[in-house]
Amino acid sequence: MPLVSVGDVSKRILLGRKLRSSQLGETLLPKRIALPVFASDALSSVAYAPDEIFIMLSLAGASAYVWSWKIAIAVALVMAAVIASYRQTVHAYPSGGGDYEVATVNLGKTAGTTVASALLVDYVLTVAVSISSGAQYAAGAIPALNGHEATFATVLVLLLMAVNLRGIRESGSVFAIPTYAFMVAILGMCGYGLLRLAAGDLPRVESADLEILPDPGVGSEQSLTTFALLFLLARAFSSGCAALTGVEAISNGVPAFRKPKSRNAATTLLLLGLIAVSMMVSVTVLAKEMGLRFVDPRDFDRLRLDGQPLPEGYEQHPVISQIAEAVFNDFSPGFYFVITVTGVILVLAANTAFNGFPVLGSILAKDGFAPRALGSRGDRLAYSNGIVFLAVMAIVLIVIFDAEPTRLIQLYIVGVFVSFNLSQLGMIRHWTRLLRTEKDPAARRRMFRSRVINTVGLSFTAVVLVIVLITKFLAGAWITILAMVFFFALMRGIRRHYDNVAEELAAEDEDRVMPTRVHAIVLVSKIHKPTLRALAFAKATRPNVLEAVTVSSGPEDTSRLLDEWDRRGLDVPLKVLFSPYRELLRPIVEYAAEIRRANPRGVVAVYIPEYVVGRWWEQLLHNQTALRLKGKLLFTPGVMVISVPYQLRSSEIARERELREDFRPRPGDLRRGDVRKRAKR
Amino acid sequence: MPLVSVGDVSKRILLGRKLRSSQLGETLLPKRIALPVFASDALSSVAYAPDEIFIMLSLAGASAYVWSWKIAIAVALVMAAVIASYRQTVHAYPSGGGDYEVATVNLGKTAGTTVASALLVDYVLTVAVSISSGAQYAAGAIPALNGHEATFATVLVLLLMAVNLRGIRESGSVFAIPTYAFMVAILGMCGYGLLRLAAGDLPRVESADLEILPDPGVGSEQSLTTFALLFLLARAFSSGCAALTGVEAISNGVPAFRKPKSRNAATTLLLLGLIAVSMMVSVTVLAKEMGLRFVDPRDFDRLRLDGQPLPEGYEQHPVISQIAEAVFNDFSPGFYFVITVTGVILVLAANTAFNGFPVLGSILAKDGFAPRALGSRGDRLAYSNGIVFLAVMAIVLIVIFDAEPTRLIQLYIVGVFVSFNLSQLGMIRHWTRLLRTEKDPAARRRMFRSRVINTVGLSFTAVVLVIVLITKFLAGAWITILAMVFFFALMRGIRRHYDNVAEELAAEDEDRVMPTRVHAIVLVSKIHKPTLRALAFAKATRPNVLEAVTVSSGPEDTSRLLDEWDRRGLDVPLKVLFSPYRELLRPIVEYAAEIRRANPRGVVAVYIPEYVVGRWWEQLLHNQTALRLKGKLLFTPGVMVISVPYQLRSSEIARERELREDFRPRPGDLRRGDVRKRAKR
Repeated sequence: MPLVSVGDVSKRILLGRKLRSSQLGETLLPKRIALPVFASDALSSVAYAPDEIFIMLSLAGASAYVWSWKIAIAVALVMAAVIASYRQTVHAYPSGGGDYEVATVNLGKTAGTTVASALLVDYVLTVAVSISSGAQYAAGAIPALNGHEATFATVLVLLLMAVNLRGIRESGSVFAIPTYAFMVAILGMCGYGLLRLAAGDLPRVESADLEILPDPGVGSEQSLTTFALLFLLARAFSSGCAALTGVEAISNGVPAFRKPKSRNAATTLLLLGLIAVSMMVSVTVLAKEMGLRFVDPRDFDRLRLDGQPLPEGYEQHPVISQIAEAVFNDFSPGFYFVITVTGVILVLAANTAFNGFPVLGSILAKDGFAPRALGSRGDRLAYSNGIVFLAVMAIVLIVIFDAEPTRLIQLYIVGVFVSFNLSQLGMIRHWTRLLRTEKDPAARRRMFRSRVINTVGLSFTAVVLVIVLITKFLAGAWITILAMVFFFALMRGIRRHYDNVAEELAAEDEDRVMPTRVHAIVLVSKIHKPTLRALAFAKATRPNVLEAVTVSSGPEDTSRLLDEWDRRGLDVPLKVLFSPYRELLRPIVEYAAEIRRANPRGVVAVYIPEYVVGRWWEQLLHNQTALRLKGKLLFTPGVMVISVPYQLRSSEIARERELREDFRPRPGDLRRGDVRKRAKR
Repeated sequence: MPLVSVGDVSKRILLGRKLRSSQLGETLLPKRIALPVFASDALSSVAYAPDEIFIMLSLAGASAYVWSWKIAIAVALVMAAVIASYRQTVHAYPSGGGDYEVATVNLGKTAGTTVASALLVDYVLTVAVSISSGAQYAAGAIPALNGHEATFATVLVLLLMAVNLRGIRESGSVFAIPTYAFMVAILGMCGYGLLRLAAGDLPRVESADLEILPDPGVGSEQSLTTFALLFLLARAFSSGCAALTGVEAISNGVPAFRKPKSRNAATTLLLLGLIAVSMMVSVTVLAKEMGLRFVDPRDFDRLRLDGQPLPEGYEQHPVISQIAEAVFNDFSPGFYFVITVTGVILVLAANTAFNGFPVLGSILAKDGFAPRALGSRGDRLAYSNGIVFLAVMAIVLIVIFDAEPTRLIQLYIVGVFVSFNLSQLGMIRHWTRLLRTEKDPAARRRMFRSRVINTVGLSFTAVVLVIVLITKFLAGAWITILAMVFFFALMRGIRRHYDNVAEELAAEDEDRVMPTRVHAIVLVSKIHKPTLRALAFAKATRPNVLEAVTVSSGPEDTSRLLDEWDRRGLDVPLKVLFSPYRELLRPIVEYAAEIRRANPRGVVAVYIPEYVVGRWWEQLLHNQTALRLKGKLLFTPGVMVISVPYQLRSSEIARERELREDFRPRPGDLRRGDVRKRAKR
């Protein structure tokens, strides 16, 4: 038999490559687009992180607010260390595997799986926190939403889910416009505020006249012991570290950057850090200067106005909302602009999780830690399950915690810092390993420098992780840790299963033994085009034995079939199987097994004629039996099942639907560099 | 190539037949078991039919109750005519097709489909009415259920659904014990009551002291015009005809009887009729004698006690309940026995619908009026969908009509009588047709007699149908008619679709053209047992071209695969397809289409190695890609898809589960004579 030459292979390799580079080139991201695509998650945390600092400090009364800007600076320092560390990562691991890859390569699978579970939990929390915070802002601008934040947040999550299930064509501008608008809004607001501060006419925020009673369990700032004060500041600091969530996103997106990829990614990361730090510090400083009073929404009874408790129904607006209202007291469109873009950026941040989740899933699938179906871009069902899972979990959290960002943030930070720590530790091991073999002094110097940076990063993030664990464990971090343990066990279980299967499947030489003969049976229910085609195809494969088989559904039908068989002069013997209980499948399965028993070194080839229809309701009306028969025959050793399809006219509908499906965007395409235009087939 | 001889065929035919008769013989029903199996639906209507007569008559005040026993006799006469007619049917059509077969054969498809839609609607209503009535009886015995009848009925339907989804092994005794107990209870109660009447110490029922004001729209019995009185009696009569529901069941169950089937079925039918008529007449007479006052539950404001309106919360118990309480006033276990067995028989009657529905479905499927999957006993999914559909529709009716049998019965009778009429008409045509050719005078005499019986039956049922349509159309029968029209259109639509497909598929001689060559490609992702087996099987079929094909998921994986391919010395060329977007399916589909384009008269055989696992969660983790690929390739003309399974150890679990599934009983088995014991495979 003639076989194709190896020449064909190389041609095809080149062809594939050519197509690839030409199509992808257009869609890689320049820095000015990459920044907004990857920044929304990190930048949006300025919408809630300062609030958390003020809430924690308020436990010791408003006088503790003197610490606020120092804490903001401390957070900014950690941010700087983390950004510097990740700049090393994007150079060393430009493949987009991010923390998971760093941890797996340098620390082993256990660390990698731990990072992956932390990231999975984080994605859920990113959605829950961002959308809850967005709901707070919306309620600040639209009074009718007050008290319905959880419902509103749930609806938002469902909308995001629907959009992502449907598939949206992501484009740079979808991110660029709102993200740049957000930067303009926040930095503009802060700049204008600082100008007015310099000019001496900085207004005070709406809550400035309130008095905060210290929490009875804490006491006023003046009465605190040094240890108690330190603990309070540590809690405020760890809450403020919410600002760091999302900075790792770029390290997963290096492949989407234009060349030089790593350098561009590192520059973008630096820019992101500078912007995030300026926002964070300015907002905190301004809030302090404008007399902000901010407490946990469940602690309104510690607020006093002229010595009196507040009336029922006091609404505490988010920090940025209060600043914007006061700064733009002479220009209300400014206020609405700030609130709107803040809300939009928070929704974009939540959408980031919907994009990152399948990307992580496909990486995990490749390593055998997640169902393999997640690894293939085309498996819409697997993707959809992931999206629905993410949305449902986020909604559960939103409902349980009543869409209060303050409470959700207790769960949030621990996961982020677990992956920061393992990733920094991995990077240190990475440089140490490279240093072992590197001889070039210049390269060694660079590696030393990088290792120092990562070591500083690790020490910062390790301190934060310890503080977070101590201060937040009972407040909710335990939930995160439980969830991480669950995902960890699940991933290890899946991997173990795949390993066991791989072992059972390992090829041995006796597996190459060719069957001694092929006994082909063609299933016949009626004599129509699909049957004739199946017979023709079966004949074309020249089996050792060929017979047609029908299951009798009654003596008249059978004799009619036999008559037609003879009349048409079909030169294949037709065997009739009787089925006492009008079953179709079992007689066939048993017959195939019987043939195989008679000739254990042969193979039974079962040809099933099928006709292919296009509409979903047509599919309900056809081929159910063929489908179930195939399912059953697969369990019968020594049998192979051959579907011989006959395409009816309506099958064209399904082909076209498939084609549309193929070109429907999947979440995460943009940040994986997987964008393409619809092409003609 | 050697082909099997025709001798094999005949041997197998005999073998199949032998197995069949020997296994089925044990399970056919003797009359004493067949009666209870088929009687529960018909007998249970005595639990609500007399109530309806009294409700209708009460519109003209309690004095109209003088008509009650005359109406009961009229109903009994119709019952006698219908029973006599069906005795002809079971002789003429012993195959179990019942009214549907009679109408289709003698009046054509339109009539047959009409009967089928009437029966479908009836099954839903049988469940709704029987369970609602059962809930009334339960509430009569358990005061805590009062006012929660609809909830209780819904729970009962859900339980029945669950039991039928799970599959129960029906046995004669499950029916025999409660049905005979019911006969003993009702006939015993009536006998004891009539004895006490003869002895002059018949107690009065609880409602005997009430006075009924005539409905203002009707007026008292004395004031009615003859026409109005006739109309009132017609309404009462048509409501009483609810007693006839279910008598047709035996005509669908002839195959389950012991031989002589038809004669035994006819005898059983006669017995059933005698018992039903005696129950109906005795209950009505006793109720009248015991001073029953019974109105529509929404008309309690027409009841007076000593001239005063009744207090809120009056509970009106069903007729049998009131009689039992009074008759057994000196023996309360008698009361509880009657109520309990009545409740049980009503649930059994509802279960009848769950059994009859799939039987009808499979008959319709055979004729192309229902999805073909319903026609095969093994298709659990199709059965389950039918059961869930039936339960959901019944629950909808129960909730809408608040589980009041009186309101549901307005919908019930029209469907029953539509099929009675068409079936009698069909029988008349049947005899007329036979008479045209029959010469033997004795046979002609018997046929004449049968035709007379069916003509009498038709005239009775036609009158009832007209009365039912006139008196019940606005009260709810329009809903039934709408539903029937819907099912009718649906069945015709399905049939039209199957006809169109059959036409498109009709075999022509050019369909027998054999492909000129077979180009086999074996898909390879890794080199493991399934791949080697697929390669060996593909080689064994000796195609004209054989090549292995892999989709590259990355340069390293690919070169590793190519190395191993060489190292193992696999003598089939391996072609690498590049996939720019990490898709697995499209490159393969496109490659297959390309080969076919290059050689339009050849066929492409795509071998897919699959491994088969047994646990449901394992199935989630494997073969998703193979499944989707097969789905896509079926739409590609000129391609056949070959699954080469490799059974992993865990697949044994699924084989055993399948085996258990095969022997799980399906609803309707008993009444189709489809019962068998679990056999060794």
